[in-house]
Amino acid sequence: MSRTEVARPMLMAELSRSSGVPVATIKYYLREGLLPPGTATSATRAEYGEAHLRRLRLIRALVEIGEIPVAAIGHILAVVDDEAASLHVMLGAVQYALGPHPACPAKADQDGQAASREADALIAELGWTVAAEAPARTLLIATLAALRRTESAPPGPSLRAYAETMAGLAAVEVASLGPGHQAGEGSRVALAESAVVGMVLRERVLVALHRLAQEDASSRHFG
Amino acid sequence: MSRTEVARPMLMAELSRSSGVPVATIKYYLREGLLPPGTATSATRAEYGEAHLRRLRLIRALVEIGEIPVAAIGHILAVVDDEAASLHVMLGAVQYALGPHPACPAKADQDGQAASREADALIAELGWTVAAEAPARTLLIATLAALRRTESAPPGPSLRAYAETMAGLAAVEVASLGPGHQAGEGSRVALAESAVVGMVLRERVLVALHRLAQEDASSRHFG
Repeated sequence: MSRTEVARPMLMAELSRSSGVPVATIKYYLREGLLPPGTATSATRAEYGEAHLRRLRLIRALVEIGEIPVAAIGHILAVVDDEAASLHVMLGAVQYALGPHPACPAKADQDGQAASREADALIAELGWTVAAEAPARTLLIATLAALRRTESAPPGPSLRAYAETMAGLAAVEVASLGPGHQAGEGSRVALAESAVVGMVLRERVLVALHRLAQEDASSRHFG
Repeated sequence: MSRTEVARPMLMAELSRSSGVPVATIKYYLREGLLPPGTATSATRAEYGEAHLRRLRLIRALVEIGEIPVAAIGHILAVVDDEAASLHVMLGAVQYALGPHPACPAKADQDGQAASREADALIAELGWTVAAEAPARTLLIATLAALRRTESAPPGPSLRAYAETMAGLAAVEVASLGPGHQAGEGSRVALAESAVVGMVLRERVLVALHRLAQEDASSRHFG
């Protein structure tokens, strides 16, 4: 379970062993510019260091846990590498790359327009700071539009009840990502990795527990 | 927006127009046994009624909103048609068909075993009634195992905090599915449609609001 700290330089084979990433995949990341080149020690050999290992861990977390396409990872890494980008911008770069990315309802779509106003009103009411282009805003609008289009939506909790509940969880989640919890060299890389792991896996925990809670409630109501 | 009530029998073309489902798709559902045959009025013509329209709406909701494979829909419809099956069993049939369906961690996997004990302990502590084979239980265990395997998981809220929060929402959601809200003929079909719409779209609202709440919290912490 403990991370192997490799202080000395590694050859490609050892980088592959230490990271668990196949050589062919590492070479692909090098070609795509996701991983910086090693230090050439001869025409055919290069050495890699701890920074390569950390970067590989982050790429694997983005690909395997975040299911983020390789084509979208370059942008995230550029933000991680840009020391001038705030943590907020960096977390946004990770979160915005997570799917699903539904299309925004067409401007002519009446249910879409109403859903868009409903989302704007909620965000304003709660005083939330979220970008106009946040993909989660589009996901919310597309889903609210779908709820309006169907005639079989059950009443359920209010949008505001969901939002306030989520705000309570998000406050603790985001605080736990703070730099106080992420010390040491390479902490921006570690924070980005932590962000994708935290956001994706905790969202999955949320969904699983939501369904289990529904099953229990259904058992008590209708069992 | 209002549902067209068609009391008189329809030919295939009209069933397609009224439901918005292409004729070829309706024929496919008939071949697969998802839609009962119409009443034959000649060797090449059959008439369809309101029940076919309602059934088509449910199938479309399961396919389009629930993203449930057609192969899994027959089982749901059989439970819907079985008047002896309780509402709890029916809601379960719908929910269990929703993805994702991760594999359970292998028995030999230490993190998987610990995750499984963690999930069992939580469910016992909360006194939840959930089936041993509930797919959401497997999803929870697989995700908790992944959190254990990664070294970069941020602390965040406790599992219990997520669970209690979800229980609060689920209680209101499930109560809103009750028969009091679903009157009239064909109410089991209407309830099943309502269940898939409610469970899937509200889960998506939850996810979208969770991400927006994270963005707002990040803006306040790190912006």
